[in-house]
Amino acid sequence: MAKLVLIRHGQSEWNLANLFTGWEDVDLSEKGVAQAKAAGEAIKEHGIEFDYAYTSVLKRAIKTLHYALEESDQMWVPEFKTWRLNERHYGALQGKNKADAAEKYGEEQVHIWRRSYDVLPPLLSADDEGSAANDRRYANLDPRTIPGGENLKVTLERVIPLWEDEIAPKLLDGKNIIIAAHGNSLRALSKYIENISDEDIMGLEMSTGEPVVYDFDDKLNVLSKDKYPVD
Amino acid sequence: MAKLVLIRHGQSEWNLANLFTGWEDVDLSEKGVAQAKAAGEAIKEHGIEFDYAYTSVLKRAIKTLHYALEESDQMWVPEFKTWRLNERHYGALQGKNKADAAEKYGEEQVHIWRRSYDVLPPLLSADDEGSAANDRRYANLDPRTIPGGENLKVTLERVIPLWEDEIAPKLLDGKNIIIAAHGNSLRALSKYIENISDEDIMGLEMSTGEPVVYDFDDKLNVLSKDKYPVD
Repeated sequence: MAKLVLIRHGQSEWNLANLFTGWEDVDLSEKGVAQAKAAGEAIKEHGIEFDYAYTSVLKRAIKTLHYALEESDQMWVPEFKTWRLNERHYGALQGKNKADAAEKYGEEQVHIWRRSYDVLPPLLSADDEGSAANDRRYANLDPRTIPGGENLKVTLERVIPLWEDEIAPKLLDGKNIIIAAHGNSLRALSKYIENISDEDIMGLEMSTGEPVVYDFDDKLNVLSKDKYPVD
Repeated sequence: MAKLVLIRHGQSEWNLANLFTGWEDVDLSEKGVAQAKAAGEAIKEHGIEFDYAYTSVLKRAIKTLHYALEESDQMWVPEFKTWRLNERHYGALQGKNKADAAEKYGEEQVHIWRRSYDVLPPLLSADDEGSAANDRRYANLDPRTIPGGENLKVTLERVIPLWEDEIAPKLLDGKNIIIAAHGNSLRALSKYIENISDEDIMGLEMSTGEPVVYDFDDKLNVLSKDKYPVD
């Protein structure tokens, strides 16, 4: 029986400033650091020992993982960083203020971009300044793999191969895993793990820094789901 | 032409307290954290971009790596932790004060343990409380692989397979690598890289937190060796 712990990164500086973040590599806020440390303390208190750790290639998630592992005395756990756990790419909205976007595009349109399962945001092209195509960390990807913008459906489709190839086999082997990632990449994982419908998934909110703990049986059915509040 | 950067971890709490540390998992001191951050700033200033990062399974080296990558804006670089980069195991001396050890065993004997290439320290057995055999992070190792104490010769023999299998192939492929590790595991690597004799190697000192930068040609001959002071 294996455990999987999901942690959405602690509050970031752009969460705080109400900007669309996506693949922009912003730092944790002071509160975010405190949340990540509290997550680690909760993990230690519950005696959860990990065999593997996964995170995105964005520092707000990486640092959340590091604080959580440090506070629970297991910094030595093997750690893998992958773009598949990145936040949903928010296209041309990245770096924009959410209120400004509502003014420019209309509140209803922005609501649709934020809350629909399969509507894409306005896309960035590979030539645009903010495109991930110009970022060294994605240089090993086929250019066609690098998104110009994603909805939750597309996010799920690129997260699930990681589940299939890395996470599920290790859980089936009885290994405990921690994943520190983002609101939407974790929403996608949760949808898949819990068989949540396309309609219901957008209502699932994960609190920043809060460990969500799944216990599985040997067919990867969920036996229990716990949360350790950090605020 | 590839670059290899070696960083001995920043000052630890036990460096400061003059204790034998070895495989004990002690934290960085405040000064050690500042050194690690300064290492990252120096790396950024020199524009060195890494493809891979390696460190030990001990947090003073892991944290040094994390600070160095964070300050040079490359936290996303893939990171591998391995016991092969651990500090030399100091056997039954671990946790002992260096002055106390000199009193108990004689100054000359302690000098021999510290400075000879191939004399082993008093060994820990697997039943001893402080043995690495009881530590979860080494649970995947054949018990015969877990040392009860090492000299520099033995340390070198377990570091070099990492060089042969991981580091050298990537350097030959033109990839830049950072290794954050320990005084003696890095001394062992430097000995191998620079063909330093058994006699001369014990005189090689690496300063805590100071990046040592090698440039190689396509046969892994050293073209240049630089140091970026951090104090």
